[in-house]
Amino acid sequence: MAGEIAPGATIGILGGGQLGRMLAMAAARLGLRTHVFAPKGDNPAFEVAHAHTEAAYEDLRALDAFADAVDVVTYEFENVPVETVRHLASQLPVHPEPRALEIAQDRLIEKGFMQALGIDTPRFASVDDAAKLGSALAKVGMPALLKTRRLGYDGKGQVILYPGDSAFDAWERLGRVPCILEAFVTFTCEISVIAARGSDGRFVAYDIPRNVHENGILRRSEVPAAISEKLRKHAIDMVRTIAEELNYVGVLAVEMFVTENDGGGLLVNEMAPRVHNSGHWTEAACAISQFEQHIRAICGWPLGSAARHSDCVMENILGGEIDEWRVLASEENAVLHLYGKKDARPGRKMGHVTRLKPLSSV
Amino acid sequence: MAGEIAPGATIGILGGGQLGRMLAMAAARLGLRTHVFAPKGDNPAFEVAHAHTEAAYEDLRALDAFADAVDVVTYEFENVPVETVRHLASQLPVHPEPRALEIAQDRLIEKGFMQALGIDTPRFASVDDAAKLGSALAKVGMPALLKTRRLGYDGKGQVILYPGDSAFDAWERLGRVPCILEAFVTFTCEISVIAARGSDGRFVAYDIPRNVHENGILRRSEVPAAISEKLRKHAIDMVRTIAEELNYVGVLAVEMFVTENDGGGLLVNEMAPRVHNSGHWTEAACAISQFEQHIRAICGWPLGSAARHSDCVMENILGGEIDEWRVLASEENAVLHLYGKKDARPGRKMGHVTRLKPLSSV
Repeated sequence: MAGEIAPGATIGILGGGQLGRMLAMAAARLGLRTHVFAPKGDNPAFEVAHAHTEAAYEDLRALDAFADAVDVVTYEFENVPVETVRHLASQLPVHPEPRALEIAQDRLIEKGFMQALGIDTPRFASVDDAAKLGSALAKVGMPALLKTRRLGYDGKGQVILYPGDSAFDAWERLGRVPCILEAFVTFTCEISVIAARGSDGRFVAYDIPRNVHENGILRRSEVPAAISEKLRKHAIDMVRTIAEELNYVGVLAVEMFVTENDGGGLLVNEMAPRVHNSGHWTEAACAISQFEQHIRAICGWPLGSAARHSDCVMENILGGEIDEWRVLASEENAVLHLYGKKDARPGRKMGHVTRLKPLSSV
Repeated sequence: MAGEIAPGATIGILGGGQLGRMLAMAAARLGLRTHVFAPKGDNPAFEVAHAHTEAAYEDLRALDAFADAVDVVTYEFENVPVETVRHLASQLPVHPEPRALEIAQDRLIEKGFMQALGIDTPRFASVDDAAKLGSALAKVGMPALLKTRRLGYDGKGQVILYPGDSAFDAWERLGRVPCILEAFVTFTCEISVIAARGSDGRFVAYDIPRNVHENGILRRSEVPAAISEKLRKHAIDMVRTIAEELNYVGVLAVEMFVTENDGGGLLVNEMAPRVHNSGHWTEAACAISQFEQHIRAICGWPLGSAARHSDCVMENILGGEIDEWRVLASEENAVLHLYGKKDARPGRKMGHVTRLKPLSSV
């Protein structure tokens, strides 16, 4: 097969965090090498990769040398500049497609993309500048979330607006940048679909976790989520639609709200064109993890099964909670995964633990 | 806790093969770093370790620098010179104990050790030189296996003697080195116990696989082995006895023959003071693999559960069989693990595949 990425080939990963680290380990188990490219900082992925480049995403010389050293490129987080990815894509295969990244990087474009596919999202309105605040509030109502269009993650870059709050103050606090105003959704639960699409178009989805956030950060994912079969199918169908529209190759995560209206509706909150925190449990509870699935997809390998052998609850280990590592390591039926990060800043994702339970009857 | 090996610490691994590679990956999942020390060659463990030293085991300067760089030392194969391990043990903790290595390196000492513990082995006799061949044959009988006392593995360093064969020729072929003559055992099956003992004395054993060898190389391990509960307990009790006698810390593998006499007897064939090929399935079928178990033990962490979530068959991928990687990757319920070795020499272990099946009722 022309351009086949066989064992021994090298995968380039943009981003040096824990997702890159877990991707690199999954690649190694398949006999593949990894070369991680990331800016200066605490890059835990460097420690398990065959090679790494510490350089800015704008360093074209470093990028060109990286392109020469690898056979395919992927990225582990969605704030890699699109220009970086496009520059590489002009030289070698990059998965997922830069277009997926471009959409995921801008909340307004993302919501518009969903709308165009007939996928429901919370009501939203563009807030390019202060003058748009009034009409946006009229359209969306209160309470609402004012979010920066770009560079938000883990609850950063957003402010909740309750009736009586000053939208202008909120916009000032966010740095007077282009924003989106989104309706505050009263949900019964949050879920996510972690799915993979192969280069042959094959699509597989893992069972759906229920996600619990605290302070905007994922606290835990419980698998399976207690939702109806109808909702489950609907959620997965939406993600398949998104993946096919983008001719997507790799793992795609889509976060959704389950609402009470119409006996249970689904609103898409956001998508991540990468492996996702709410899929970390797949490493402990499935034969083929989301990380291996992503590696298989971007290398043109057949996708594996997304079957589960256990029910489970994945819980993030945040900041100083890492000090409890010995207690967590003592727990029966708990799979501990620590990221090797040096600095346990408050709220920082230091690891996760997946507690396994026998498979519930379906 | 004094001398506690916490996340962020560095484990030194002697040996750069696939066992070291899998140990390094298990350590990384616990937030631990690894530094692999191995002589020049194809060392697949280097690619996933935080650091590596390529030097001879006799290079004291390199060993001292290695000792300075790590917090605890282990080894991934039993032919590391004992002097190397003792040199390191004089400077920092080394697990398993050098004594375990010393015993496992010499088939005669090993069999004598088992005998002293009341553990049955095949009949054996020492063959220090040609003059001892006659009395050894008289004691052991034919057919028999003449094996070098040291440095044998994967069927190398041994010759089968059938009635009429010249024992002297066999001894010449083995290089006129000190040998052991062992009775050729007619077994119903071969099994192995993969167990771990923690620094707190806790002992856990995985379920017992049935092992099938071809040309002296492990072909496959089937879990669970179809043996009686009585035999299963007896096998595990013997390994616990060995581990306690050695004040062993780490994973210990003991290979045994199941014989037909007395309604099913057990003879210990050999022990390996390390993780073992016949335990590779634990990565696919258990929450805590033998690799993680070994890392936990040598770091003084609590051992994990050895419970299985699936039945399985692990099969080695040998030499050119690696060319079938795409077919193996397409199999449902198969967990593929490739070692990233460059040269697929005949019989070389290039990877393994573990085929999972639902747990059989016990």
